Parts: sequence; C-alpha cells; structure tokens
Amino acid sequence: MNIPRTSFPRIVIIGGGFAGISLAKKLSKQEVQVVLLDKNNYHTFQPLLYQVSTGGLEPDSIAYPIRKILKDFPNFHFRLASVDEIKPSTNEVITDIGSLKFDYLVIASGSQTNYFGNSEIEKNSMAMKTIPQSLNLRSLILENFEDALLTSDLNERNALMNFVIVGAGPTGVELAGALAEIKKGILPKDYPDLDTRSVQINLIQSSDRVLKEMSENASKKAEDFLEKLGVNVWKNVRVTNYDGKTVTTNSDLTFETATFIWAAGVEGAIIKGIDGSDYITKGNRILVNEFNQVKGFNNIFAVGDVACMENEEFPRGLPMMAQPAIQQGHQLGDNILRLLEKKAMIPFSYKNKGVMATIGRNKAVVDLKHFKFQGVFAWYVWMFVHLFFLIGFRNRAVVFINWVYNYIRFDREARLIIRPFKKRLRS
Amino acid sequence: MNIPRTSFPRIVIIGGGFAGISLAKKLSKQEVQVVLLDKNNYHTFQPLLYQVSTGGLEPDSIAYPIRKILKDFPNFHFRLASVDEIKPSTNEVITDIGSLKFDYLVIASGSQTNYFGNSEIEKNSMAMKTIPQSLNLRSLILENFEDALLTSDLNERNALMNFVIVGAGPTGVELAGALAEIKKGILPKDYPDLDTRSVQINLIQSSDRVLKEMSENASKKAEDFLEKLGVNVWKNVRVTNYDGKTVTTNSDLTFETATFIWAAGVEGAIIKGIDGSDYITKGNRILVNEFNQVKGFNNIFAVGDVACMENEEFPRGLPMMAQPAIQQGHQLGDNILRLLEKKAMIPFSYKNKGVMATIGRNKAVVDLKHFKFQGVFAWYVWMFVHLFFLIGFRNRAVVFINWVYNYIRFDREARLIIRPFKKRLRS
Repeated sequence: MNIPRTSFPRIVIIGGGFAGISLAKKLSKQEVQVVLLDKNNYHTFQPLLYQVSTGGLEPDSIAYPIRKILKDFPNFHFRLASVDEIKPSTNEVITDIGSLKFDYLVIASGSQTNYFGNSEIEKNSMAMKTIPQSLNLRSLILENFEDALLTSDLNERNALMNFVIVGAGPTGVELAGALAEIKKGILPKDYPDLDTRSVQINLIQSSDRVLKEMSENASKKAEDFLEKLGVNVWKNVRVTNYDGKTVTTNSDLTFETATFIWAAGVEGAIIKGIDGSDYITKGNRILVNEFNQVKGFNNIFAVGDVACMENEEFPRGLPMMAQPAIQQGHQLGDNILRLLEKKAMIPFSYKNKGVMATIGRNKAVVDLKHFKFQGVFAWYVWMFVHLFFLIGFRNRAVVFINWVYNYIRFDREARLIIRPFKKRLRS
Repeated sequence: MNIPRTSFPRIVIIGGGFAGISLAKKLSKQEVQVVLLDKNNYHTFQPLLYQVSTGGLEPDSIAYPIRKILKDFPNFHFRLASVDEIKPSTNEVITDIGSLKFDYLVIASGSQTNYFGNSEIEKNSMAMKTIPQSLNLRSLILENFEDALLTSDLNERNALMNFVIVGAGPTGVELAGALAEIKKGILPKDYPDLDTRSVQINLIQSSDRVLKEMSENASKKAEDFLEKLGVNVWKNVRVTNYDGKTVTTNSDLTFETATFIWAAGVEGAIIKGIDGSDYITKGNRILVNEFNQVKGFNNIFAVGDVACMENEEFPRGLPMMAQPAIQQGHQLGDNILRLLEKKAMIPFSYKNKGVMATIGRNKAVVDLKHFKFQGVFAWYVWMFVHLFFLIGFRNRAVVFINWVYNYIRFDREARLIIRPFKKRLRS
C-alpha cells in the first residue's frame, strides 16, 4: 500500500464505525499519521438501520462518506480495504490491497451477527447489521407482499405475510414496532386486494422479558406498547432452527414464514492474527485491559464492539453499543498521545449515558442513570439523541424531514425494491 | 394472474413511467378497471438520474412507490411483472407471473439504451436509464478513484481518472457538468494523495454542436459553460468502439479510460407481439396514429417514448421526453373514455412547453417557445420545473434540502459505494 512514510508515528485503525471515527477525529490534528482502513467508503449509523429496512429512511441519509468526515485533517489517509491478517511479529497488517506497516494498531472492526453455529439459520435468515443487508430486508418484505397477491394457496400466502423476528433487544423491538405500524397504516392502502389483517408479527425472545439490558419498567412498558401495536411477543421461547420455511423452537411452537429475521445476538468481528484463546474471550471479543491494550502488546489496541473490557458494573464486558465505542475511541486517542509523550496512560472509565429504544410513534422507553421514563416524552428524547449523534448536517436535515413527514402522514415512502432480493434476475 | 373480473372494461397498461402514470391517474376515478404492470414497484424520475450518479441526490428521493400514487383510486390494480409477449389475437398479455386478458391495452414501456448494434460497447459501457444503473455508475466513479490511489502505473492511474461520455444530449451535458464540479470541489479534499488536476472529462458528440435538439444559442452557451468548467468537448467525432480500455473513434483520436458512459441514444423498448416491420418504425418505436392507436387495432395503443407519432413539427416522431409522454397519457385517458361512450376520439396535439438542460451551478439553458434564456435565471427555472414535476411532497422536500445544501456547501454527500460495481465480492 503506497502510503508515504513521514517522520510522524503511524497509527493504523481497522474500521470506520463509531470507535474508529471517534479515535481518528481525536488523533488527526496531532503530529501522527493516521491510516484508516474500512471495507466501505462510508460510516454507517447502525441504530437507524431498522428504519431503512422498513422504508422510513433512505439508506443514504444514515451513511456518511468517511473521507469527508476527516477531509480537513492533514496526515490522514483512508483506504478502501478489507484486512485479512494482523502480523504482530512484524507490526504489519495484510489486506486485499497489500500490506502495511504500523507503529500502533487499533482494531475497531466492530461486531457481526452471531448465529451460534447454526449454519441453516445463517443461510436462511435475514440480518440487519449493514446497509446492504437492511436494503435486502426492505426488498424481501415488499417482494413477499407482491408474491402474496399471486398465490391462491392460503398457507403460502400466510407464510408470506408472517414475520418472525428472533431476539427482543433494541433492534428486534424497534423492527417489530415498525412492521406493526406498516401493517396498520400502509398495507391496507397499498394492497387492497389482500386481507392484510392476517399479517402476523412475531417477536421471539429466549429470556423472560424484552429489552433485557434495560430496567424492568422499560421492559414492561415496551411489552405493553408492542401488544397495543398488535405484535405477538413470545417470551421464554428458544428458536432451534429455520429451514427456509418452518421455524422450530424448544417447545411445540412452530411458525411458517417467508421472512425470518435474526436479531438474536452479535459477536466480535475478529481478525486472523489476533485470534485464538490467547486473546479471545466471551462473545468472540478481544480481551483488553483498562487502556484498551491487547494482552501482550504495548502497541496493539482494540476498541468498540470487538473489545471486551470488563469492569465491576459489566463483568462480561461493556455493552456492544455506540456509547462505549465513542468514548473508548476518544480516550484511546488521548492515551496514544500520552504514550508518545512517554506519559502514563489514563484508565478508561465508562460514563453510562443511558439506554433507549423506540417502539413506535409516541412510544419509546428511556433508562437514564437516575431517571427512567416511557411514552411520548421518551420518544422525543430518542429522536433528539439520534439526530444529535448522526453525522452531517444534510443527513440530519433529511432524516428530520422524513420523520416529520412520516409522523404527519402516517407514512413511510421509501418502500422501493431498488435492490431486488428474491428476484435478482429482474434487476 | 388472479385479478377479479368486474363489469367494468379492463385496461391494461404496460409501464409506470411518465406516460403510464399520467394515463392511470386520468382513468382511475372512472368506471373502468385499470391494471398497471411494471418491472419495478416504483416510478423513476429519469431527468434527475445523473444527480444520483454523481452523488448529489439519494436514489430514493427520485423514486416513488407506484402503489402509493394510485392508492386512493378504486378499481386500480398493480402487479410487479415483466411482460414477455402481447397476443393481439386473443387480447392477452403474457408475463413472468402469468397471462392476463385485456379489453384495452396501452403499451407505455418507454425506451432503452441504443447501442446501434455494437455489442462490445454494450458490454463495456455504463448506461444511466435506471436507478440501479445510476447507482452502478456512482460506485464505479468512486471505486476508480480508490483504485487510482493504489496504482503506481501512471497510464493506469490516468485511465482511472479519465471520463468519457458519449452523446451531448441533456443527459451527457448534465453529467459532464456535474463531474467537472466534483473534480473542482470535492476530489482535491477527498483525495489529497492524488493529483486530481489530471482528471479529464471528455464529452464526445458526433454532430457539430451539443444539445442539438435545442436552439443554436442554447448550444453555444452550453458549450461556453462546459468549457468554463473544464470539460473537453469533442464535436464531429464518432465513437467506433470501446474494448474496456481504449475508445476508438472515426478519426485518429483515441482515449484510454476506465469509465465510458454511453448516452448516445435511446430506442423504443418494444415487446414481442407488437414488433416487426408491420408496427415498428424509426428508433425502434411503434408507429401510432393521432389517437395513439397502433396500426390495425382499435383497442391497442402506445404512448410515450415507445410510441412514434409523427407530425409536421416532428416528422421523425415526437421527442422521447417526459412532456410528450405525460400529455399523451392524459389525452389517451380521455380518448379511451370517449371510445367507451361511443364518442369520436380527439386527435392528440403536442403542446411544446420547451426544453431545458443544466450544466452546473448557476448555469442552465432554457428554450421556451417564444423566449430563450441562459444562465442563473435559467438555472432557477430548471430547478423549479424539476421540483414541480417530481412526484410526492417528501421527495420534493428532500431534493430541495439537498440542492440548497449542495449549493451552499459546494458539496455532494451521497458519494457512497453502497452497491459496489467493480468489487461486488466485497459487498
């Protein structure tokens, strides 16, 4: 990779998610060379992917060109590359566009869907971790309704109009709520030929409550909201398989569905070279110390979802969410600068700013440290916070316009099959 | 296709472009059953596709769900289908989702890129007639710059930064202007490692002026604008081939390029059954009479780009643009209703509302019937007219926000490789 060597130390960052961008921003005005590698040329605002899947937002409004985020910083280099291997012995990363030496390496490769080793579920399910995946899901939902119009087989039609979402974390809950609103507000108008009352939205959860990372109050209220919207919430049910037609569970319960969405878990997206039991702990994450350092190295770090930093409050590692990633990226920037100045690094301490999820219009749940609330005000807070953390004025304006429009009109206009999923041949 | 037969006559429309939608709107409040068939579930606002290709607009803001356009009309049915054949003898269309009987058939299948029989150009060139094609072009442009960073071969790097656009109609001119603005405003900031001054934008035209369907004044001014923006305009040059690397022409002139955009012509998108010399005339279009009737049939019509209606002003048929399509669709709606009432049909008469093209910020050319003007005011008129004809309030608001933002910030933020073209494997 032809990146000029300067007198500045070179810091290579793998991944342009929340952690990588936050770190790059912190470092890029300093006397260091920063090389950011990502498989995509854009940063994805993952918390809003479910709105892309459900036609409420256009994908381009929650993506932002990485080059633009850092365009005013000297000594910053971006390369569109996928990292195949890390070679700690030679301080080198091997990518699909060549190898690159580093002085410091930061692994910010994020997380990927965890199928818990079930290859049939992996093959037959839809995930929602990337923009292309979210667009595929948007297409599939719409294609299934178009197909439901064509069949006279009642079982087939019901399967096409039956949605099964596994995992009632924020992603599953938000998606289920959005689908319920589509069932009510859009489908009867768009498909007058179909009896859309028979559309079923099933949210399956292996534990005994939804949003189990949140307070009991939040879970209870979220379940109320989901119920009001007509979502079938199945608790204490564990999905055992999906063969492309039938969902089986650990009980007698089965579901026939053409749309099976797997939101049941994520795991660290680790890279060859920093893998194996020396480095990897629970959730396939890289164990790091309080400075985000990978065990055994002074100059290799991991931040964000891929890093497992244990503390008293979170003995299984900080939650895999935007806030810990942003804060760790920021703090690590400081610490790398301190290292370069031969100062002692400062241990990371997580400021838990709270957790929130939205279920539908006027329906959200917010857990702050000292204050927990649900309903309309929580919904406004949710929207404000998400707008605030979106990158870029244009994205914020476009998302805001869409939300106002969707709110007033009970609508979601991006119901477009631009990237056909089932019918790729038609594209 | 299981569409219920009612006592109303059934009108089948093939295609949800400007003509098909305008016709469906006209008919759908009447005592007729309307079945609209389209390969996509959305209407595309083609005049703005070049802004999608150049990152100025998100694709979703120029597409609109067809079901939504007609959601309040009873007796309207939409099917996502691709028509394989028309059987006039049995009043039937054969599609990929089954066959359908019609009482009246309207072919509004539009136009497709005309490669004039050159299969190598067809294989190696980029077109810009659909949203997926425009997104492919957007990706290719960005991918080429990412690749230009990686090569140390000067010829290869130049080819990656060299753009060749064939055809200086509105599409070619607008695309060339947009690329020139990207070269000036975005590339130096996004790619500080590249010498983006060597980016070349070549616009090749076989006739002796650009925008040859417009007035000589408009052509002259457009050429001035293009020159000011740094576009190389090649007139009286005919491209003979492009093998994926080298563009050859009818003179000694050749170009080495990785991005070859073919905007040199379109032809009617005809369908088996109404093809062959009995029906087809210049430009592969279906010859129709002044009522848009196809020769030999009382109940089969063609409208829009696919129809060739000759008149005194346009002996080669009305121009393949939005205005004739919209007006014909509207008029045909009236005429079908007159037919049903056993009244005489009214001959179509084209109201030429003018032609316009934009070259860049503050730079457009407008030819109205009695008034021709160029420059800043023309640019405002161009924007106003395009916003006005866009379907949907949300689309207008989002496009407007983007334009204001792009204007103030000299920016185009949708430079996202969401649908990789060269590197499909990375997706």
